[in-house]
Amino acid sequence: MLRLLSLNVGGLTVHRTPSHKFSTASVMAKSKFEYVRNFELDDTCLRNCYIVVRLDGRNFHKFSDQHQFIKPNDNRALGLMSRSARSVMEELDDITIAYGQSDEFSFVFKRSTNWFKRRTSKLMTHVTSQFSSSFVFYWKEYFGEQPLLYPPSFDGRVVLYPSNHNLRDYLSWRQADCHINNLYNTAFWTLVQKGGLTTTQAENRLNGTQAADKNEILFSEFNINYNNEPALHRKGTTLIWEKVNETTTKHIKRPSEEETEVTVTWTKKTVTTHSCDIIGDQFWEEHPDILESDQC
Amino acid sequence: MLRLLSLNVGGLTVHRTPSHKFSTASVMAKSKFEYVRNFELDDTCLRNCYIVVRLDGRNFHKFSDQHQFIKPNDNRALGLMSRSARSVMEELDDITIAYGQSDEFSFVFKRSTNWFKRRTSKLMTHVTSQFSSSFVFYWKEYFGEQPLLYPPSFDGRVVLYPSNHNLRDYLSWRQADCHINNLYNTAFWTLVQKGGLTTTQAENRLNGTQAADKNEILFSEFNINYNNEPALHRKGTTLIWEKVNETTTKHIKRPSEEETEVTVTWTKKTVTTHSCDIIGDQFWEEHPDILESDQC
Amino acid sequence: MLRLLSLNVGGLTVHRTPSHKFSTASVMAKSKFEYVRNFELDDTCLRNCYIVVRLDGRNFHKFSDQHQFIKPNDNRALGLMSRSARSVMEELDDITIAYGQSDEFSFVFKRSTNWFKRRTSKLMTHVTSQFSSSFVFYWKEYFGEQPLLYPPSFDGRVVLYPSNHNLRDYLSWRQADCHINNLYNTAFWTLVQKGGLTTTQAENRLNGTQAADKNEILFSEFNINYNNEPALHRKGTTLIWEKVNETTTKHIKRPSEEETEVTVTWTKKTVTTHSCDIIGDQFWEEHPDILESDQC
Amino acid sequence: MLRLLSLNVGGLTVHRTPSHKFSTASVMAKSKFEYVRNFELDDTCLRNCYIVVRLDGRNFHKFSDQHQFIKPNDNRALGLMSRSARSVMEELDDITIAYGQSDEFSFVFKRSTNWFKRRTSKLMTHVTSQFSSSFVFYWKEYFGEQPLLYPPSFDGRVVLYPSNHNLRDYLSWRQADCHINNLYNTAFWTLVQKGGLTTTQAENRLNGTQAADKNEILFSEFNINYNNEPALHRKGTTLIWEKVNETTTKHIKRPSEEETEVTVTWTKKTVTTHSCDIIGDQFWEEHPDILESDQC
Repeated sequence: MLRLLSLNVGGLTVHRTPSHKFSTASVMAKSKFEYVRNFELDDTCLRNCYIVVRLDGRNFHKFSDQHQFIKPNDNRALGLMSRSARSVMEELDDITIAYGQSDEFSFVFKRSTNWFKRRTSKLMTHVTSQFSSSFVFYWKEYFGEQPLLYPPSFDGRVVLYPSNHNLRDYLSWRQADCHINNLYNTAFWTLVQKGGLTTTQAENRLNGTQAADKNEILFSEFNINYNNEPALHRKGTTLIWEKVNETTTKHIKRPSEEETEVTVTWTKKTVTTHSCDIIGDQFWEEHPDILESDQC
Repeated sequence: MLRLLSLNVGGLTVHRTPSHKFSTASVMAKSKFEYVRNFELDDTCLRNCYIVVRLDGRNFHKFSDQHQFIKPNDNRALGLMSRSARSVMEELDDITIAYGQSDEFSFVFKRSTNWFKRRTSKLMTHVTSQFSSSFVFYWKEYFGEQPLLYPPSFDGRVVLYPSNHNLRDYLSWRQADCHINNLYNTAFWTLVQKGGLTTTQAENRLNGTQAADKNEILFSEFNINYNNEPALHRKGTTLIWEKVNETTTKHIKRPSEEETEVTVTWTKKTVTTHSCDIIGDQFWEEHPDILESDQC
Repeated sequence: MLRLLSLNVGGLTVHRTPSHKFSTASVMAKSKFEYVRNFELDDTCLRNCYIVVRLDGRNFHKFSDQHQFIKPNDNRALGLMSRSARSVMEELDDITIAYGQSDEFSFVFKRSTNWFKRRTSKLMTHVTSQFSSSFVFYWKEYFGEQPLLYPPSFDGRVVLYPSNHNLRDYLSWRQADCHINNLYNTAFWTLVQKGGLTTTQAENRLNGTQAADKNEILFSEFNINYNNEPALHRKGTTLIWEKVNETTTKHIKRPSEEETEVTVTWTKKTVTTHSCDIIGDQFWEEHPDILESDQC
Repeated sequence: MLRLLSLNVGGLTVHRTPSHKFSTASVMAKSKFEYVRNFELDDTCLRNCYIVVRLDGRNFHKFSDQHQFIKPNDNRALGLMSRSARSVMEELDDITIAYGQSDEFSFVFKRSTNWFKRRTSKLMTHVTSQFSSSFVFYWKEYFGEQPLLYPPSFDGRVVLYPSNHNLRDYLSWRQADCHINNLYNTAFWTLVQKGGLTTTQAENRLNGTQAADKNEILFSEFNINYNNEPALHRKGTTLIWEKVNETTTKHIKRPSEEETEVTVTWTKKTVTTHSCDIIGDQFWEEHPDILESDQC
């Protein structure tokens, strides 16, 4: 009978007589290397802080050009960003609010979360990964037959906020950024698309202007009231969990009875999308469950 | 003429007379929030260390069941993992070697890299993002008409290794892990698929066996010499940059001459794929450029 | 005239002609090495969190034996610890409260502090250093002619607390620890010193007892009401900043007037020492300036 | 019989009937607070790197003025720094070399050390604490009757170096710094003390000069060959562990023999002090045990 005479394990040729030598060599090989696990360092997030993961598209200026995004806002792209963010919220635990604008999205884990033991790397990579794969997966739903030319990349980071005040200021900062950029972009592209200016001329025209000036240009020259522009563009996208009632009608037929129609209503939590102001108090008063108490 | 009378900025209604008040309010709003940037903490990697980013599939046991992966190894899935890893190497700078097996892949940045200023979060999220979006993007190339049911997720982590010895031990550890798992899986699925055992019976049969025992089972009962199993399955996948010569033939026609055929050869760096032993010295002697000197 | 012909700089012999070569070599030498500064990593504390530095004596069991500390509490040692802590508060900025018991002391920096740019290493080493040098410096004030046999060592650590609630729980934890240890030690040393038990017998006697049992032993066997034990021992030492009035009398003599006595009173901030309960609300209501609002 | 009726524990008055309530409350109290331990974050140093702890005196310019340090170098102060550093090396494990100059000292833990589990905070605070308490403890040995006016403070930091090359460059950097500062200070104080310049005049005179210029000033104007200045000042202080032979003579008297004199020699490791060049190779070749191999 033919016998296997030698095995190559881990670069070492181990002769099989006696046979138990093989297994010893193999086990030793792995255990000999396993010390390298100790080089991994702990990166647990400080407890009782909100954990924010913010994503940003890499080279999205070029990406949006190559995919002919409509200027200044492409609703397909914004829809896809929002859809991908919803995928993140549905797949990962303990995200209570997400806010996005342009090619960025922020995800807020509740301050008491213990998801993945609050490990920084796990939190940021899972959010980034789920968002990135979703962006490609749902592309077709938003761009139809227009092909995605290459797989895009997003970077992520983690920032901790110890108080409700800090967290709200963070979200306000991102929404104020949305406002300033969108006002600029709206004025810029209106000057180009409707005013016939070159991009350089438009840039020069807006150079040094304040917000009021841009509003004035839009209003007096193009009859555009910036406040009537779509809220999605002015306010960005906010995703939260809300309880919604769902109703179905069932037809029930019991023996010796007529068939009856029964309406069943139940409550489930679902991710809802908003384009509203999140800087003022109203939003937070209407959704008191997003924040946890500072008294914890 | 109709005039815009008030603007809602950041929850505050700002009356427009005098007009410069608006812009001040707007600018102040953002600058008032910008302090939150200071909560972001630095996470620069220690210099002169190899930076390893390792990815792992999330819930890939379930994912592989739902997508009917062939057991114990699905070459389509391994090909897709490898294709995605190549995308990472081609898009991101300074990765000199990548090693993958099963649903994991490790990427090694050279110890002197200054990519993204060595910031831990940038490094790990860009690798994870590019890999994840590529996995969906290239799915069809490997799985054809079989649909991807949902966007998958990978986590990532960063580990630093200060010496060549440590780095090689890290890669050896992963390849030893590949060896041990693949030998087990090969024996397990052979017992099930060819031996007619239930999965529970196969598990019991292998419980407590050494590597030599599994080799013996495969050889004496199923006439399978494990060493002849595909290297891809036994050794995993190693990606490196190599110089390859490319040759093209051009037809040149100069005035008052006959058309001549010219052969042009040039060298370019490309990512090459290997399924070989990386524990022993031979691989490293053949590719001396992967490691940088410890004397730095 | 004798001329200096060569200089040995950084191991290199640099000949002096032309003379500017020397300086170049010297400057180059240092600049060549200066890259090593980049290996220092940032360790800034997260903003808006209380920064607690806790010190613990190293091998203080042995230290207290070698210096014949009185059991279970040596008031000289406790006084010296407290004096050293006061030195830390007076020398370093932004410590609002300190709490000590046994051979440990905790220092709380206000959450908004920007002392040393909130760098973890600076904060913990300065506290530890000032405390350690003060401990030796003030030894004689508390131990008189009994000599300090060798320089003692303390370790330090930094812990961040994001909310007032967390910070108070931290201080409560340390005071509860003081209570439990002191009750045990009081019972133990009473059994040894007054009850005539060996230390082993005392240990066995207390093994498994609850707090109530220890109170009962003290009360019924030794007529000691634990609650009447010194507050310093039961509650530890709390240091805070308080405004105190200071009054001096000056004799003023103006021309063509009689000498008059003038009393001048002024307010200054000083470190005051307390041995009171800091777990309940009373202390915090009486000293509302220690904590900053969570609403920040 | 008088009974203890109530106990105040943690701010709560707990009535003693039934008695077990007390202990429960007490134990619960501490366990209720113990969650705060989880706010402490891990700060383990990366393996296989040299761990350098560097100390710097705080406000030592003022300290040296107040204690009338001799300019440009006070041998008493340098001796005390060196004595304190020796105390650190003798009390703490795994420091293989220390280098000091002016009011700073660097301590190098061997790259394989596992002292205090390589925790950054423990390492830096223990070094700082032992140094600080030793500085006060040994003050009298160096300054005699001149009193220490107040307890001084040192800060500490940890820097990791992955290779022998990096570590040597670090030490070279500090010695180059010593050289440059000492040359400047020697020239400066010579101009003041021997040249009769004011400090402002001396500063102006040296402004913009290169090392060669300072050498020239010292040599041509004051007949000082800088290379003949004390090595302690030019090279700083290096402490290492060395084996030294110790010899004692014993008189032995055996029964029915004459008394004989026996010489006993043994080897022990001791901290030795050097003021030599550590930038060049010679020092390292003579002391090959300081560095561990990069091949680890």
